[in-house]
Amino acid sequence: MVSIMAHYGIVVEYGLHCLLWLVGERDKPVSSRDLADLQGVPAPFVAKIFPQLEKAGIVAASKGIQGGYRLARPAAQVSVLDVVDAIEGRKRLFDCQEIRGRCALFRRKKPPWSGAGVCGIHAVMLRAERSMRSELAKVSLLDLASGVQRKAPASFAGQVSDWLNDRAIARNDARLAGMGIRPTKSRRGRKA
Amino acid sequence: MVSIMAHYGIVVEYGLHCLLWLVGERDKPVSSRDLADLQGVPAPFVAKIFPQLEKAGIVAASKGIQGGYRLARPAAQVSVLDVVDAIEGRKRLFDCQEIRGRCALFRRKKPPWSGAGVCGIHAVMLRAERSMRSELAKVSLLDLASGVQRKAPASFAGQVSDWLNDRAIARNDARLAGMGIRPTKSRRGRKA
Repeated sequence: MVSIMAHYGIVVEYGLHCLLWLVGERDKPVSSRDLADLQGVPAPFVAKIFPQLEKAGIVAASKGIQGGYRLARPAAQVSVLDVVDAIEGRKRLFDCQEIRGRCALFRRKKPPWSGAGVCGIHAVMLRAERSMRSELAKVSLLDLASGVQRKAPASFAGQVSDWLNDRAIARNDARLAGMGIRPTKSRRGRKA
Repeated sequence: MVSIMAHYGIVVEYGLHCLLWLVGERDKPVSSRDLADLQGVPAPFVAKIFPQLEKAGIVAASKGIQGGYRLARPAAQVSVLDVVDAIEGRKRLFDCQEIRGRCALFRRKKPPWSGAGVCGIHAVMLRAERSMRSELAKVSLLDLASGVQRKAPASFAGQVSDWLNDRAIARNDARLAGMGIRPTKSRRGRKA
């Protein structure tokens, strides 16, 4: 009977963490694979999250070898609630089954008073849900990313950009090598 | 990926509805079977909920043919949150997996700043959870029962008591009949 599963699953956590890396200037869109590897989380999960984020207008995708994702709107305009709803699909706190109308005393005919207004139990749950959602709506991706920035050393953002660029270059090099072409600009060359 | 299951399941709904019938004066403790039938909900579910409510100190059980449940403390001192936690077991809104520490850039050694304080994403979720729980803690069983009482006609509470008493008498009659004893006080007799 006791179920300890959290309301918002690990996909919400993956999704939010991934999006943080898209906040700020990026030279190129970032692939979901690179985002997964950067964070040490399973790539297939992340690959499934991004189409949902795209559908919700949170990220925009570009195709091709240099393809990947960018934020579709400013990070200040994407709330934690937007992300949660995009991934979990407007999950409710409570599903009211209108049990109040099934009382044995009513037999075949429910008296009108029994269904008047919202069920009191449902009403409490709705208030709790509204209050929870309102907290999630208060915080944007920009707020979250700024929080990380305050903790990290100044060099960290640059290191992340380098890591992502190196991955993109390595992928392109591998593609060219597969076609028998020697890369003109190697990863090491860029760093030297 | 999308999961639309509510955070609090139908057992919470059954539990809360059942408890409402225990608010106020009752001649006898009420069996979980009668509570289930009164509301038209499945008796096996309800039978499983009550031991959890008892363990949480919300109801007290008495055994035997006249056995059943009563509230273990005044209805004003049982919050919706108490009931939810008793049934669902302190379910979290979000389980933080500390993904921030897995960043590929850290390689083998996590820098201390990466784990400083609560993860920003977890912190938002904790605020949302606190706010949700605080709404559930504000409302007691007495509040809920008073809400029903305000909607129902004045005669309703008495009808419920009669229904529950009739059930208890019928059960006792059946038991006596099984022992070959003719009941002295029949259900019809009491009502005449």
